[in-house]
Amino acid sequence: MPLQFADRLNSVETSAIRELFKLLGKPGIISFAGGFPDPAMFDVEGIREASAKALQEEPGGALQYGATEGYEPLRQQLSQFMATKGEGRPGTAVTVAPNELIVTTGSQQALDLLGKCMISPGDKVIVEGPTFLATIQCFRLYGAELISAPVDGNGVKTDELEKLIAQHKPKFVYLIPTFGNPSGALLSLERRKKVLELAVKYQTLVVEDDPYGDLYFGDAPPPSLLALSATVPGSLELLAHCGSLSKVLSPGLRVGWMIAPAALMANAVMCKQFSDAHTSTFAQATAAQYLKAGRMPATLTNVRKVYAERARAMGEALTKELGDAVEFTQPQGGLFFWARLTGKGGKVKDAGEFAKRAIEQGVAFVPGAPFFAANPDVSTFRLSFATADVEKIKEGVARLGKAI
Amino acid sequence: MPLQFADRLNSVETSAIRELFKLLGKPGIISFAGGFPDPAMFDVEGIREASAKALQEEPGGALQYGATEGYEPLRQQLSQFMATKGEGRPGTAVTVAPNELIVTTGSQQALDLLGKCMISPGDKVIVEGPTFLATIQCFRLYGAELISAPVDGNGVKTDELEKLIAQHKPKFVYLIPTFGNPSGALLSLERRKKVLELAVKYQTLVVEDDPYGDLYFGDAPPPSLLALSATVPGSLELLAHCGSLSKVLSPGLRVGWMIAPAALMANAVMCKQFSDAHTSTFAQATAAQYLKAGRMPATLTNVRKVYAERARAMGEALTKELGDAVEFTQPQGGLFFWARLTGKGGKVKDAGEFAKRAIEQGVAFVPGAPFFAANPDVSTFRLSFATADVEKIKEGVARLGKAI
Repeated sequence: MPLQFADRLNSVETSAIRELFKLLGKPGIISFAGGFPDPAMFDVEGIREASAKALQEEPGGALQYGATEGYEPLRQQLSQFMATKGEGRPGTAVTVAPNELIVTTGSQQALDLLGKCMISPGDKVIVEGPTFLATIQCFRLYGAELISAPVDGNGVKTDELEKLIAQHKPKFVYLIPTFGNPSGALLSLERRKKVLELAVKYQTLVVEDDPYGDLYFGDAPPPSLLALSATVPGSLELLAHCGSLSKVLSPGLRVGWMIAPAALMANAVMCKQFSDAHTSTFAQATAAQYLKAGRMPATLTNVRKVYAERARAMGEALTKELGDAVEFTQPQGGLFFWARLTGKGGKVKDAGEFAKRAIEQGVAFVPGAPFFAANPDVSTFRLSFATADVEKIKEGVARLGKAI
Repeated sequence: MPLQFADRLNSVETSAIRELFKLLGKPGIISFAGGFPDPAMFDVEGIREASAKALQEEPGGALQYGATEGYEPLRQQLSQFMATKGEGRPGTAVTVAPNELIVTTGSQQALDLLGKCMISPGDKVIVEGPTFLATIQCFRLYGAELISAPVDGNGVKTDELEKLIAQHKPKFVYLIPTFGNPSGALLSLERRKKVLELAVKYQTLVVEDDPYGDLYFGDAPPPSLLALSATVPGSLELLAHCGSLSKVLSPGLRVGWMIAPAALMANAVMCKQFSDAHTSTFAQATAAQYLKAGRMPATLTNVRKVYAERARAMGEALTKELGDAVEFTQPQGGLFFWARLTGKGGKVKDAGEFAKRAIEQGVAFVPGAPFFAANPDVSTFRLSFATADVEKIKEGVARLGKAI
């Protein structure tokens, strides 16, 4: 007799993307498919020093069980890190005490804890269409019915969002307002305010996932919803904010954090206790020493500069090689281009078909359809500019030109 | 309007133990309350070298996103580690290929993944009475109804277990067969075989949680259920085994692993992807280098020796100071004494009351009642001998003598 699994597993599908990823092993392929940072930019020496210092100065703390809420020295450093957000752009700094944030095992775990704490089977959750794939599956495992709110180059369309909130009365609204994955979109300041006003008006929790907010190419982006909540009375009590060191320092540390209303934090800590007891104190102590050593500003300057060059190169190449067969908004930060096949000139309009042809030409990317919780737009696709250098980007986009 | 949390949160209670732990800050207190290893025994130098080597030899792997299944070099090392189990005692070595195990964020996460994969609300799960507290809460969060199977000094009573399986048809049976927490009990070889036969007879999944199996004081314990499954046809397909480096090397690494039937492993990996993406590759690469360096045998020899001394000292002190007011089985491994107040001589019989008096005398332990999923035995309590040295143990037990 085969094992009988839990009913909740019926609500997730094997990712279509996983099938595509299997093709990436093909020799010579240029990949724009991944969602990860360039390992060549990891500050290995800084992390090595931080790790050695952690083991030298606090071996017990770094190797023993720790508080579920997080390792105290790291909570202090993250509190200070939040205070430097936006590098002095007015209103972007976040004042949060160390005990007002909890450390999570990557921000993926923050999503899992939100699902565990908030979602009963059948509850509705509004996400952006498109949104982060692992968010869709994570929330579905807790039984959520996902409602998809449309986005444009300025992020989620708040007039549509309001209609959906009023209609569906969701348990919460999940947004990646700054350089979203996969949309690359930057939610405008006006819409940010509107989102917070909607939270208060409809008494709806809003989750701000912010792993990319530090990866801006020009001026700092508008304040996070968390920073902006100070200007919208009542909104802070309806806001959860997820941060991460994965995209700016190292995903391998698995260090993220969450700031949320007190009752939600208490429940999240309780759930985390039974999920993984606590995030690796070894990784937490290393991250704390890294931040304390003051290396982060230079690291951020470096990744911003490199990704900005790559994004510019990809935008120029796309215009040159694909012309009016695609449309896209040039991203101002993050890791991704989000593009749409126009079908102009009789060119291919289905991104799945385009992806297959691209693989044949030796270049990979991810079709957009799986990023939609509902009503997929099959003409969309995502290109990451993070891991290929400028020359590879030019060559890869030229191959896309051949594939189209 | 306050936030509306998920229904599943209604099934867990705030731990009674947590209240007691707040008292541990009292100056001069000797604590037998914790469930953690002695940090003085951490091989800090070995871990520092392993971490430095991981960053030197494989910086990309140690700091980048990794496979959800686990970091390949660690899976290889864990496969070899399993092959050394029991140090040559016949039948104790486990042959498991690297791709037949997955790495988890501590074995706590293995429990969480088992809950997520297996338990639909209302499903029944059989656990030992008493069992690990975080197991009870973890499974309840997924909606499990827990059935408690009685244990004695030889582990779970298999005749009672069979009746409960036949009656309740559980989704699975969860056991800590070797030096259980809190029971300290060692499941006998005969009962181990019986458990595997029951798994086959009733086609019931058995979960073997084995974080303490390497902490034996004399001869190696009987083979794990996993090792023994080779002798009971059909049982391997109904067995999940959870291992951990937390008790023998360092809890702070948060490195555990799970071996389970292929369909369960695939679902666990899928769920883990949306729980924390993967366990810290930084911690995994460090653990892999540590195991590769061959330091584990000496580390195990050391912890076995130190804990054996402490266990002996605690047993002798208990007999001397508390006499027939308590009864217990001398543990042959692990971290815990499990004792019962007899009430003889008009002495206190309620362990909660005893714990309060003990705190007044400057010694702390954990009453046993919360470890029971049902029908708590309020005369029981747990003493850890892991973190106090022999002198402290003698002094602490003398204080227990005063408290009684």
